[in-house]
Amino acid sequence: MLNSNDTICALSTPNGVGAIALIRVSGAKSLAIVSACFSKNLSDKPSHTAHFGYFKGPDGTLIDEVLITVFESGKSFTGEEAAEIACHASPYIQQQIIQTLLSAGCRLAEPGEYTMRAFMNGKLDLSQAEAVADLIASQTKGAHDIALKQLRGGFSNELRDLREKLIHFASLVELELDFAEEDVEFADRNELKQLVADVLAYIKRLATSFELGNAIKNGVPVAIVGAPNTGKSTLLNQLLGEDRAIVSNIAGTTRDVIEETLNIEGILFRLIDTAGIREGAEEIEAMGIERSKEKIQQAQVVLCLADVSKENSLEEVTAWAEEIRATYHDKKIIIVANKVDINHRSPSAVEGPVIFLSAKEGVGIEDLKQQLVELVTGDFNISTDTIVSNARHYDALVRTAHSLEKAQYDLDNNITADFVAMDIRQAMYDLGTITGDISTDDLLGNIFSKFCIGK
Amino acid sequence: MLNSNDTICALSTPNGVGAIALIRVSGAKSLAIVSACFSKNLSDKPSHTAHFGYFKGPDGTLIDEVLITVFESGKSFTGEEAAEIACHASPYIQQQIIQTLLSAGCRLAEPGEYTMRAFMNGKLDLSQAEAVADLIASQTKGAHDIALKQLRGGFSNELRDLREKLIHFASLVELELDFAEEDVEFADRNELKQLVADVLAYIKRLATSFELGNAIKNGVPVAIVGAPNTGKSTLLNQLLGEDRAIVSNIAGTTRDVIEETLNIEGILFRLIDTAGIREGAEEIEAMGIERSKEKIQQAQVVLCLADVSKENSLEEVTAWAEEIRATYHDKKIIIVANKVDINHRSPSAVEGPVIFLSAKEGVGIEDLKQQLVELVTGDFNISTDTIVSNARHYDALVRTAHSLEKAQYDLDNNITADFVAMDIRQAMYDLGTITGDISTDDLLGNIFSKFCIGK
Repeated sequence: MLNSNDTICALSTPNGVGAIALIRVSGAKSLAIVSACFSKNLSDKPSHTAHFGYFKGPDGTLIDEVLITVFESGKSFTGEEAAEIACHASPYIQQQIIQTLLSAGCRLAEPGEYTMRAFMNGKLDLSQAEAVADLIASQTKGAHDIALKQLRGGFSNELRDLREKLIHFASLVELELDFAEEDVEFADRNELKQLVADVLAYIKRLATSFELGNAIKNGVPVAIVGAPNTGKSTLLNQLLGEDRAIVSNIAGTTRDVIEETLNIEGILFRLIDTAGIREGAEEIEAMGIERSKEKIQQAQVVLCLADVSKENSLEEVTAWAEEIRATYHDKKIIIVANKVDINHRSPSAVEGPVIFLSAKEGVGIEDLKQQLVELVTGDFNISTDTIVSNARHYDALVRTAHSLEKAQYDLDNNITADFVAMDIRQAMYDLGTITGDISTDDLLGNIFSKFCIGK
Repeated sequence: MLNSNDTICALSTPNGVGAIALIRVSGAKSLAIVSACFSKNLSDKPSHTAHFGYFKGPDGTLIDEVLITVFESGKSFTGEEAAEIACHASPYIQQQIIQTLLSAGCRLAEPGEYTMRAFMNGKLDLSQAEAVADLIASQTKGAHDIALKQLRGGFSNELRDLREKLIHFASLVELELDFAEEDVEFADRNELKQLVADVLAYIKRLATSFELGNAIKNGVPVAIVGAPNTGKSTLLNQLLGEDRAIVSNIAGTTRDVIEETLNIEGILFRLIDTAGIREGAEEIEAMGIERSKEKIQQAQVVLCLADVSKENSLEEVTAWAEEIRATYHDKKIIIVANKVDINHRSPSAVEGPVIFLSAKEGVGIEDLKQQLVELVTGDFNISTDTIVSNARHYDALVRTAHSLEKAQYDLDNNITADFVAMDIRQAMYDLGTITGDISTDDLLGNIFSKFCIGK
């Protein structure tokens, strides 16, 4: 895969039948190879121009009428000389064109090889390359915005700034080592302490944002639990009500149970294990958290439903919520006090958020949605803050923070400069793996092999 | 749909997730609308140039990095000013871009509307437009070659030549009507007779080719019948053997039972009702054509399998073949004399083709395949002859032939010129509906509504 001397080709549009398909060719011989199969010579055409003509098979037979766009070396997505062949989207034609290109000297591209070449040629850094895959996979505004921001390099630029500051200080600290006998300090220790503290705080906030980023990328699993006849089914329908149409509007969405996801302000909530609820089959047995254990384990947010028209229901549910909190430390809980249309109770001294609503009358549903979003976003602003959504980046950030904490300890305890330098170098290394300033073949192979062919 | 003043947009690549998707915009305001959503003004860019930039939503938020190719009026597929937006193939992004275009003044294209506009603007005639749909649907070389030939206008040009000859003579005949009292003949009757005979022969041959064209387009249903233990299962496996890989190579082929089609020289044979055969479950009961009735009814070609290692088997099968011929007049029958490895019988006086083979040893399989192809193609040459594959064209050709036969009768019996003229005009009319020189809104609506959106 790392042999980037080959000229590669692949279908870049989705598989299947349609009006148009695009086959991408990239590499030093792109225009020579494509010209040999085309009714015109493309080698002398200016970059970014499109040419209509006939694509011919190895035996000269006509395969299709196509439009080929040519790209000069340095001006394409990969940074290499490239051509994009727009043909009719028939599987037969696509196959014939690709087979012709292969016999004319192309190699079939590996998954992600176009993006990898763009990275190798400095057109994208590694986190931008990863953003391409996230962008394609994004199903909601939230996921899309994070991926696009990352693709445009905002995140990378921030990291590069931090890394440069660290490099500057590391160099000064290392310079001291050369003059060790003279006991000078080129790097002001207070300034360095402040820098490390600042960078550490920044890195930690980025790492913290991963919980949100991951939730946005993969959806937030939500469980609705409550005793029989507290109105779980009615609440579910209210939540899904208007939103279902929007979700199913997105062509090609392939979730099996599309009606059970909820898109609020661009964040996808996945309402788990709602089959029973949807069918209106409220459990007959007395409700207990034991009964909903599995459901709660899978959830990130638990909606505990109380029926305020009944004596003690809210108190009971508050007790469950306490029990859930005590058992699972990572669950976010919203107590939902339903049926305010029958009996409006004033808020009792319940810990955590309580939403009073009437699922039946649709009152308070917006408050609940707002609460769901706030619970997930915390103090991050999706539109303006940098949100980490990639587990690899999170991992690198945690390791960076760990090295910086060691450097901080060294500085606080006047440990010798060589240890400080080593820890800062390690932090720089870990940070560099995110943007690919530091990379290994294994790492690259691992990242790009997850891409689809043609990207 | 016929309002062609609107600027239309639609996704033109197949639905789903991939690297790149193409959204097509066509109509007088294409560049103005697209420029309003793009980071560059495209209105003054030369035709057939591609421009990289940012596509923005109605509120100015960034949707994607895209490459937009612009086409001047008169130089695009539709003949209108047009733009093609290449974006990342995420359903979310596609939807956002299309929604933005709609709010910027586009209308969503109806199925086939791009091709219909190309027809309306004289870029394609009707049979070429129909060829676009056939080309996209083609799964074999045969179907592909016919569609491509039709798209390139070979068929249309031939028809137009014929039609012009008829017009010339019709005019002369009609001129005679103006001078009816003078009893002159501008149109030489012998020449006219010869012309009508020539055109009629040509039209009839085209109509005859439809059986082949339809077979190539939709596949040829083949039934394998034979007594238990004559080797049906072995023959089926031999036939499918090497070919299966080729068929399944075609990505996106969606036939349910892909292993039971056979591509020989670009013609698709569909081996019907082979489930029982594949499982090796040879019928226990004595074989009779009664038993295979349903299977034979569906088939176009019937392979009657005899076991020549058994006394009388070939004679028995020959008798079945006679019975099938007598019962169903449109079946093509090949008698397959299997097990020549055990006992090679010399051909008896059997009517129609007999192939001697050994399914077990793979001997004679190629002969059988060749025979299948010859039986279907008859005296047509798929590579060079014009083959009609569209039922609408066939219907028009039959009607044309009918009118020409009437004209022929008129001429032979010295019926007055006005009848001759009427019949020739009718033939010209019917011929004209194929290329769309004659068309009605109903006809167009009917043709284009079967296209997919985006084409």
